[in-house]
Order: sequence, then C-alpha cells, then structure tokens
Amino acid sequence: MSIQIPRGTQDILPGDSEKWQYVERVASEICRNFQYKEIRTPIFESSELFMRGVGDTTDIVQKEMYLFEDRGGRNLALRPEGTASIVRSYVENKMHGLANQPVKLYYTGPMFRYERPQAGRYRQFVQFGAEALGSEDPSIDAEVLSLAMSIYQKLGLKKLKLVINSLGDLESRAAHREALVNHFKTRIGEFCSDCQNRLEKNPLRILDCKKDRDHELMSTAPSIIDFLNEESKNYFEKVQQYLTSMGVDFIVDPTLVRGLDYYNHTAFEIMSNAEGFGAITTLCGGGRYNGLVKMMGGPETPGIGFAFSVERLLAALDAEGVELPIDQSIDCYLASLGDEAKDFTVKLLNDLRIEGISAEMDYLDRKIKAQFKSADRLKAKYVAVLGEDELAQNVINLKDMSSGEQQKISLESFVEHLKQKCQ
Amino acid sequence: MSIQIPRGTQDILPGDSEKWQYVERVASEICRNFQYKEIRTPIFESSELFMRGVGDTTDIVQKEMYLFEDRGGRNLALRPEGTASIVRSYVENKMHGLANQPVKLYYTGPMFRYERPQAGRYRQFVQFGAEALGSEDPSIDAEVLSLAMSIYQKLGLKKLKLVINSLGDLESRAAHREALVNHFKTRIGEFCSDCQNRLEKNPLRILDCKKDRDHELMSTAPSIIDFLNEESKNYFEKVQQYLTSMGVDFIVDPTLVRGLDYYNHTAFEIMSNAEGFGAITTLCGGGRYNGLVKMMGGPETPGIGFAFSVERLLAALDAEGVELPIDQSIDCYLASLGDEAKDFTVKLLNDLRIEGISAEMDYLDRKIKAQFKSADRLKAKYVAVLGEDELAQNVINLKDMSSGEQQKISLESFVEHLKQKCQ
Repeated sequence: MSIQIPRGTQDILPGDSEKWQYVERVASEICRNFQYKEIRTPIFESSELFMRGVGDTTDIVQKEMYLFEDRGGRNLALRPEGTASIVRSYVENKMHGLANQPVKLYYTGPMFRYERPQAGRYRQFVQFGAEALGSEDPSIDAEVLSLAMSIYQKLGLKKLKLVINSLGDLESRAAHREALVNHFKTRIGEFCSDCQNRLEKNPLRILDCKKDRDHELMSTAPSIIDFLNEESKNYFEKVQQYLTSMGVDFIVDPTLVRGLDYYNHTAFEIMSNAEGFGAITTLCGGGRYNGLVKMMGGPETPGIGFAFSVERLLAALDAEGVELPIDQSIDCYLASLGDEAKDFTVKLLNDLRIEGISAEMDYLDRKIKAQFKSADRLKAKYVAVLGEDELAQNVINLKDMSSGEQQKISLESFVEHLKQKCQ
Repeated sequence: MSIQIPRGTQDILPGDSEKWQYVERVASEICRNFQYKEIRTPIFESSELFMRGVGDTTDIVQKEMYLFEDRGGRNLALRPEGTASIVRSYVENKMHGLANQPVKLYYTGPMFRYERPQAGRYRQFVQFGAEALGSEDPSIDAEVLSLAMSIYQKLGLKKLKLVINSLGDLESRAAHREALVNHFKTRIGEFCSDCQNRLEKNPLRILDCKKDRDHELMSTAPSIIDFLNEESKNYFEKVQQYLTSMGVDFIVDPTLVRGLDYYNHTAFEIMSNAEGFGAITTLCGGGRYNGLVKMMGGPETPGIGFAFSVERLLAALDAEGVELPIDQSIDCYLASLGDEAKDFTVKLLNDLRIEGISAEMDYLDRKIKAQFKSADRLKAKYVAVLGEDELAQNVINLKDMSSGEQQKISLESFVEHLKQKCQ
C-alpha cells in the first residue's frame, strides 16, 4: 500500500519547478534593484505571535491555523502568513538600530492555512512578500506598489488592475468607526452572529463579511474617504502623485478596507483582469501598518508591505497565455557503443559537467538507437558518439544538432572544444 | 512584551541570506549540468510515511519528529528528511513510467528534528539532496558522489574526505547479519537495552550505537567487506574504478554502515578535515537504497541519493575561511536637495530600477551630507545629485565613485546613460 500526499498540498515536479525557479529569480532580481534584501524566518512560530500579529478574531487565527505542541510543550503554529514573523524578527534583532533605514525586506516560502481545498487554493501555498519598515514618506508607499507591479509586469502579466484606498490615520479611523457603528447598530440583528460581534470590536470588518455582503446597509455604509482628516488626505494625494509620476496606473476604491486595527493610510490590491481567471481575482494585497511594530513590543515604527501567492501568480500567467522563457535543452548527449567506450564516456561526461556543460548519457545499457532517441527527447544541442573505432583512433564524433554538421574531435581537446561552442 | 523565535530555530538575515542564495544558485546550476531536476514536496506528510520510509525504530522517528493532528484528524509530521517524500512522490506520480530514465531529482528546503539545540545544530535546518531512481548501473553511483563533491568543490571547500563502503546485496547482507548475531549474542547482556532489541531486529545498527561504541566486541565485529558475494564485489569495484577515472579521491572504510534494511551496495559520507570544525565532521551522507521504492508501494526500483545540511556547509566554508563572491554594492544612489528635486528623484529612481539598475535614495528627509554617507555605506558605484539648480537646467550631476570623475547629464538621457555604464 502506498501513502498519499496530505490533502490540500501538492508536489511541484520537474517541468513545473523550472517555472517556480524562474519566477523566484525574476522577483529577487527586481527586489535587488529596489534594494529589498531577503530574510528567512522559521516555518513555525509561537502561536501567540499570530494571535497578536494577525488578530485573534480573524478566520485565519480562529479556524485555519495549524496548531501543535512540540515535545517541550511549546504552543506552536505553522505560519499562516509572513508579516507577523518579519515584525517579530525586526523587533528581536533590533533592526530599528541598523545604519541603513528604512529596513527593506523580502521573503518567499510556504505558508499554511487549513481551508477547504479547491482549484488554485492549497493548504500549503507559497507567498512572496516585501516589507519596508522605518519610513512614513509617501514615496515608500509608491515604491512598494511599484515593486509589486514591476514583478508582475516583468514576468509578462498585462491584464492587471491596481486598486488603492486610504484608511487614514488614527483620528480619521476613529471618526469613521463611530459613523459605522451608528450606521449598523439599529439593524444589527439582521446580520450574522460574526457581524454582531464585530459591531463593537471592529465594525470595519463588517464590510468584509461574505455572508452579509448583499444586505442593503452595506452599499450605503459611510465611506472612509469622507472621514479622512487634512493630513491623511494630503498623504494619500502624495502617494497618488508619485504613482502617476512613475507611470503606475491605479484606481481608487473607497470600499477597499483592511479590518485590523493597526492598518492605516494606504491599502491596496492587485487583481487580474484576464478572462477565465475565475471568481477570485485578487493576486496581491498589502498596505500600511504603522501600529504593528509597537504592538509587537518594538519601538513606534511605521511599516508597509504586500504579499502575493506564487500559485495564483502562475495561474494568472497561464490565464494570459504567457510562456516563460525557460530553456529545457541540454548542451550535449554522449552516446557510446561497447563496454570500453562506455567506461570512457562516464569519465568524459563528468569532465564536461565539471566544466559547466550540461550533459547526459545512458545508464540503462540501451542500444545506440535508443540513446539517440534520448538525446532528441532531452533536446541536446550536440550529440557526441564514442565507439570502439573512435576510441582506437582517440577521437569522438561530434554532431551539431541544429546544423547537422559532424566532425571528429580528438579526445584530448573534446571538453575544451565543446566548452567554447557552448559559451 | 515581545515574542521570541522558537527555540532551536534561526532567522536568516540580510548579510547572511545572500550566502544562502549563492550556495543554492551554485548547487542548482551544478545539478543542471548533471541533469538533476528540482522537485518540491510539502513541509508535512502523513507521519506513517516516515515510520515506513525512515524506519520506526530510528531515533528520528521515535524521539525527534514533530507530530501533530490537523483539524480533520489526520496524523501529520513535519518532514525530518527528504528521501521518504521523494519516494512517496515518485510512486504517487508514477515516475517509473516517464520516458527519461533514470529519474534524477534534487530538492532543497527546511527539515525538522526535535533535538537538543547546540552550536551548528538546529531544530529547523535546511537540507540539499539528490536522488537517482531507476538505474543500478555503477556509473550512477559514481555520478551521485561526483555531484556532491562538485558542489562542495565549486563553492571552494578543499579539506574534504570522501569515505565509501559497500553493504552488498541482499544475499551478502544476510550472511553478514548472521555473523553479527553470532558475534554479539553470547555477550549481548553487556550492551544497552537498545542494542539488545537490535540484535534480532537489525544487528547492523549495533555498530552505530553511541553508548556501546567502546565495547571490545565492537572492534572485532565481522566486517561486511568479508561477506560480499562475487556480484557485490564486482559492483563495488566498478564504482571505485569510475570514481578513479573521474579523479574523485576516496577512502574505503568497511565500518561505514547504514542501519536500515533497504540500504545496500554503495554507502558514503563526506567529511570536513578543516581545523577547528568541531566534533561532528560529517557534512553529507548517502547511499544506495534499492529496496525502498518497493517498500513504499511502488514497483521494484533501484535508487541512490545523498543529502547534506546547508548550515553545516556554510560552517565548513567558514572553517576554511572561504569568502563567497557576493556583490553587496549598488549601481546608483540618487541624492536630492529640495522638495521639487526630491519628487523628481522618486520618479527617476523608479525608472532606473525598472531598467534593471539597482538604485536607492533617502526616505527620511535627511540632509545631503547624510545622503552621501548612505551612498558610501551602500557601496554605490555612482552617485547622482539633483538640486534646484540642476532641475532648472534639466540636468543631473553624476559622479563615478571609483574614478571620482563627475559629469552633468541631461535628465532625458540619464537612465539610458547609466544603463550603458552599468552593463
């Protein structure tokens, strides 16, 4: 009896793994240009970290976290997202004291949420994210948005919609909050029990409710935009001005909210407009969280960041029919005839590889014809044949598969010869 | 109150993460030359997978696994090693039916073992490993060994010792097993309780026991080398012949064993000889496991592979004083004077980055002198200055930091100009 992969997880196999590698390479190169540096945090953390950093009233923490105890009785959780860990690391490693400020970080790796698996949604999925900690200059908001868009665009996505909003500062949010409570409270009995709990705790999250989305009070709810004070308005306008000067297209949507207390000012989402991409069109979400570092025990520190799922990014590339430029060919296939030639081929093959040439041979004692078939399947640029005759003459027969040209090369100069051709 | 990182885990911060990236890039390029393709399996699996695939009498499974139940009551474990998952995936995805055989795979990612944390030993650590499934040609044993050694050598390690042994085929192992039982049984009462259990179950593992290592019967125990049948001897000699022809240095050590039933023929370890590297000198371990795929529910399939810890590899590089060639400089720092110039700088900065130039500016309203200091710290190759005068003249002041040469460039041609200089 064989054992199955856990439900909601997937293997990424050769043929697909090259796409993941390509996406990661492009994203990290762009991060380098934008001067975001990689940070790697553990797969699990204290479960308390996410209760505080993601919010203990969220679905993620209440229903979707993988919780466990280690053998020392510590309460741990597989990380459901990246920001809480980054902020934990920022505080623990006293990054506010580093010479280079703001601290600009990116991360990529698996995240875990126990949700109902469905097309494109996994219990283990990979997020790529970036965070800038230590500046509240509106230019860094624009930079973070441009970084996310640049990654998507560099990979070839065209059908993108960037939606932004402002949640304002503390004062603006408090005024809006009061208006929301007044708007909903007389008819809150018509809402789901979750929303009834949210009314006093966090009325902004009512606007995110999937159950009550069609209630008539939803579309008439007071908009944060009308409650932004002067400073918040100016901040938001400056962000938009920078985006415009950068040539980053965007739409302002006053209904875009983030429900947690420590979010403020800029909030954004990037969606795919590609036809047939499915119901969930959001690729990327992010925003400013000036209260988070303080709440996690660090000094008052502004922050902003985003995260996107690599699975959804790959799905969007598929939906737009983008072919990633992945080279699946190999430089050279070494075919051999006879035991002695085979033994020599093993050595030659190793020499090629050590010199940086991708090369392959047969390990199953197959006939020469089957070896040629393998060379074809592997899309070999060159095929070299070594038989007893060649070995006796100290040469190898090299065929250029694109031109069809053949030549005999001395065994001594073969590696050097091929190295020059392949560079 | 701030929350700490879980005991036995570490954050990999900027300054170190570049080393990890470099090692991974080199290792995956070499894998490409050797035609091993990346596979990614989930962070957790059914705990049963490791009981079967690693062995339910091993310390790893009995004492060190992170076990938990998901919200659906499934018994899961954080993976303690890579091979069992790869074999699970090989069977589940019917890779024995692929056109290209043998199937050659590599993986890299975090593994988890609840051990006592100490210098260089973490509860979450990263393994890099490779597996070749579907060939029992001795040339593939030599190839796998050469692959591991090539990665180490390409990264700059010189003080390496490759130790190999043969565990023989089933017949040879059965004869050796019988001799071991006879050797130990009359005095087994002098051994630890674990060894007493091992006597009938798996006497080979007695030789691995840390408690009984100094017992006089250990050094006189029958050696597998004396029990290899003709076929096993020939196989082992052929592997050695290939290694010699490849120029891979090795030592044969008949005491090197792997305790699990499905291991056979070639077993190996790579150790560091570097001074001051510490007590545990093993960097990499591997071997042939022709019985494993069948045991995991797949067809009879030979296999061989290795795994090494990236943490230990980095420690070995440190011990040998190897400096990895990591470029920490940036192409251009944009300094600005005045609000209008700053706004324009935000746009220019974005243009540079989009064109593939790594660039940075100030986000904290710092004076020009502090901006120059930042440029120095970031090792900027060029510093461009934009003030009100330059903006009025539509130029920017560009300084080449290596030559000290300065020139005024028109704002229109600035990005193109710098792009050519930086390529």
